[in-house]
Amino acid sequence: MLSLNFANVMDEVIGDKGLTEREIEDLRPRITDALKQIRDRKWEELAFLDLPEQDTEKIKDLAVKIKNDSENFLLLGIGGSALGPRAIVEALSPLHNLRKKPRIFIYDNVDPRTLSAILSVIDLKKTTVNVITKSGSTAETAASFMILWEEMEKLLGKDKAKRFIATTDPEKGNLREIVRRFQLDSLEIAPGVVGRYSVLSPVGLLTAEVIGVDSKELLKGARDVRERCLEEEVWKNPAMILASALYLLGTKSGRTIDVFIPYADGLKSFSEWFCQLWAESLGKLGLGLTPYPSVGTTDQHSQLQLWMEGPEDKVVIFLRVEDYGADMKIPLVFEDMEGLNYLSGHTLSELIKAEEEATELSLAKASRPNLTVHIPAIDPYHLGQIFMFFEIVTALVGFLFGINPFNQPGVEEGKNFTYGMMGKKGYEEKRKVVEEAREKKLCWTLR
Amino acid sequence: MLSLNFANVMDEVIGDKGLTEREIEDLRPRITDALKQIRDRKWEELAFLDLPEQDTEKIKDLAVKIKNDSENFLLLGIGGSALGPRAIVEALSPLHNLRKKPRIFIYDNVDPRTLSAILSVIDLKKTTVNVITKSGSTAETAASFMILWEEMEKLLGKDKAKRFIATTDPEKGNLREIVRRFQLDSLEIAPGVVGRYSVLSPVGLLTAEVIGVDSKELLKGARDVRERCLEEEVWKNPAMILASALYLLGTKSGRTIDVFIPYADGLKSFSEWFCQLWAESLGKLGLGLTPYPSVGTTDQHSQLQLWMEGPEDKVVIFLRVEDYGADMKIPLVFEDMEGLNYLSGHTLSELIKAEEEATELSLAKASRPNLTVHIPAIDPYHLGQIFMFFEIVTALVGFLFGINPFNQPGVEEGKNFTYGMMGKKGYEEKRKVVEEAREKKLCWTLR
Repeated sequence: MLSLNFANVMDEVIGDKGLTEREIEDLRPRITDALKQIRDRKWEELAFLDLPEQDTEKIKDLAVKIKNDSENFLLLGIGGSALGPRAIVEALSPLHNLRKKPRIFIYDNVDPRTLSAILSVIDLKKTTVNVITKSGSTAETAASFMILWEEMEKLLGKDKAKRFIATTDPEKGNLREIVRRFQLDSLEIAPGVVGRYSVLSPVGLLTAEVIGVDSKELLKGARDVRERCLEEEVWKNPAMILASALYLLGTKSGRTIDVFIPYADGLKSFSEWFCQLWAESLGKLGLGLTPYPSVGTTDQHSQLQLWMEGPEDKVVIFLRVEDYGADMKIPLVFEDMEGLNYLSGHTLSELIKAEEEATELSLAKASRPNLTVHIPAIDPYHLGQIFMFFEIVTALVGFLFGINPFNQPGVEEGKNFTYGMMGKKGYEEKRKVVEEAREKKLCWTLR
Repeated sequence: MLSLNFANVMDEVIGDKGLTEREIEDLRPRITDALKQIRDRKWEELAFLDLPEQDTEKIKDLAVKIKNDSENFLLLGIGGSALGPRAIVEALSPLHNLRKKPRIFIYDNVDPRTLSAILSVIDLKKTTVNVITKSGSTAETAASFMILWEEMEKLLGKDKAKRFIATTDPEKGNLREIVRRFQLDSLEIAPGVVGRYSVLSPVGLLTAEVIGVDSKELLKGARDVRERCLEEEVWKNPAMILASALYLLGTKSGRTIDVFIPYADGLKSFSEWFCQLWAESLGKLGLGLTPYPSVGTTDQHSQLQLWMEGPEDKVVIFLRVEDYGADMKIPLVFEDMEGLNYLSGHTLSELIKAEEEATELSLAKASRPNLTVHIPAIDPYHLGQIFMFFEIVTALVGFLFGINPFNQPGVEEGKNFTYGMMGKKGYEEKRKVVEEAREKKLCWTLR
């Protein structure tokens, strides 16, 4: 089970800049109310909590088929449709595309260079394309889907439909309509499951199974952590403590940037998954906390200076791994060199863990608050735990802020301007606004 | 040549929350003084400015040798020794390891899972290892170097030395001593070139040449932008305007987070390179600006909500690409579907550029300041430009803050604690501090 150490946010350890027990105690009624909303499933969008109980049979069947008939698995999706699957692949199958089949490509943009590069290395006839969009009409995903649809048509004619799997709403939307029309294989994203909370739905699980991960292990981890985090005792519940600490540090001490730093290369994408969850859920009404994606030890040589001595606006969340599942000893090869030989005899995992602990401590000694989530290993079970854990923490913080952690109203206007420029019917006015802005910009350009 | 559009930080466009011409004018004496420090090379560490004039012959010779005798190029380095080379590979050679030889591996951590995975896919006998550490004793780099040194010894005996290239200080440090002792091939990092400003030194250029990029093009771009940005006329100099705007928005309006969002997958690593440069250079004395790495259009579905409606603490820096060097038309495949067919007939590059412009505009309409750096293409020449451009901007902002943008005193304490734990002589006291802290932490752990 994951554990949480929060010594380095407490005043007893880091002095005046830390939290007092009393402050956490004072927040108890509100965090307890927030937890009740979750326990009682007060919002439809809390459906993510019940994903551990889903039936995975169809996902498993499709994965078997893909593994049998495909050398490549190309996922088209963006945001929550891509970040979760990528986090799973990078955490559980390092250097996947150089070591295993089917190779996994996740195209989550409309960058033509990337798509050209992908198409130059895959044989489409041996590729399964998984199109993921809950609404069924996400512009970026639709664009690449239509291109792939035509490319497959050229190669396979009517048989093209067999190379596609759609993951979308069970009933609504253009993609579901296409499923019906062309009899595509498909998986369902339940209406209450929002994109950024969807990694444990078929969105993430199909990719997991395709790379050989037992999705039941992911779900078991998620279920166990859910049980642990829905207990109503604040001082024993790591989700309630983490949510309370980050909320208090954000609102009372202006520490509004939450740096997330797992000490494992394989969890760099997990950082990015977390950052979407945190940013899009909490950034509303002028409120919110800014997540910062990071990875240790690497970013000690990139960001640590800023965390140690820059503005006091950050809380650092460490993710510590106990067992890396692989290790290597640093040999005694340069005996007479004091600048190097102290490392000899230690293993890489001793070094990475020592650095993690040293960084926690140096921040604490500088009165810079930080917390540490520990996981025993990077495996499907514990990955499932941290997915569910941070989803619950995010919802709790949203409820503490009094905002809706499940919508994203702020991205609509940008979509409307894009529609205007792309000539979508009904958006002619938006196009005019863009053109006016262009003229204005001319005076403020340095060439 | 790159260009800068700064309409969306001006009050004329975004209203009261923007900057006035007067504010920029008032800063003129200080930014002019900052520029003079750069022009006059007042700091030894401004040596990066003169990298465009370096002799690249030895780099080119080594690269030819590597291309002839190696299937893999394994770079060991961390921070500035890794981020620049990675930015070059990802920008200029998409999906490199699936398409080209030698394959490039950049190991910039001490994560044993990653190193195991790399060693499982490369044949060491056909691998050149490039060890990059300016000091010659960076712990992470030293650890992996010693492991590789022994592995090569097992395979090749005394010939192992031929598989290594060291990139380090010309005179000092353990790695230079090893070069002398074992007659390794080596390249030099000039004493005045700080890690995070070293991408255009042999640190970045060797990798560039190995992937087939003409390093002279990178340097030519850098030189041209340097000439442009050392002109003393603030209203015509994009580096002075960008530095002034970010400094003013940071200090006067509390917009201390600078989001960096290139609209190109290949520049995601460039984002991370920029973030190290910005964070480590400017985060000092309680001052500084926090960079945020991002990529468009992807992060419109991840971060944009927060930028639009979260706290007013951000400035967004767009990097817009005019020509992607590849393109694809979105076909008319679902004629009757209004949610999709508006895209048909457009190209992917039209869509990505429309989205970039739409996002700029929607932020501006919400009075959220943003600027746009335009580059004509992602090629060596323009990559060289943006490296040098942001290095100059960083130094300018550092001088405006009155801090030293070239040191990183805040990371020493963490290193000392690590030395203590690893048993390095002279750090016994630090070890005790770690052990005391461990005891204290026990009371604040939730398992």
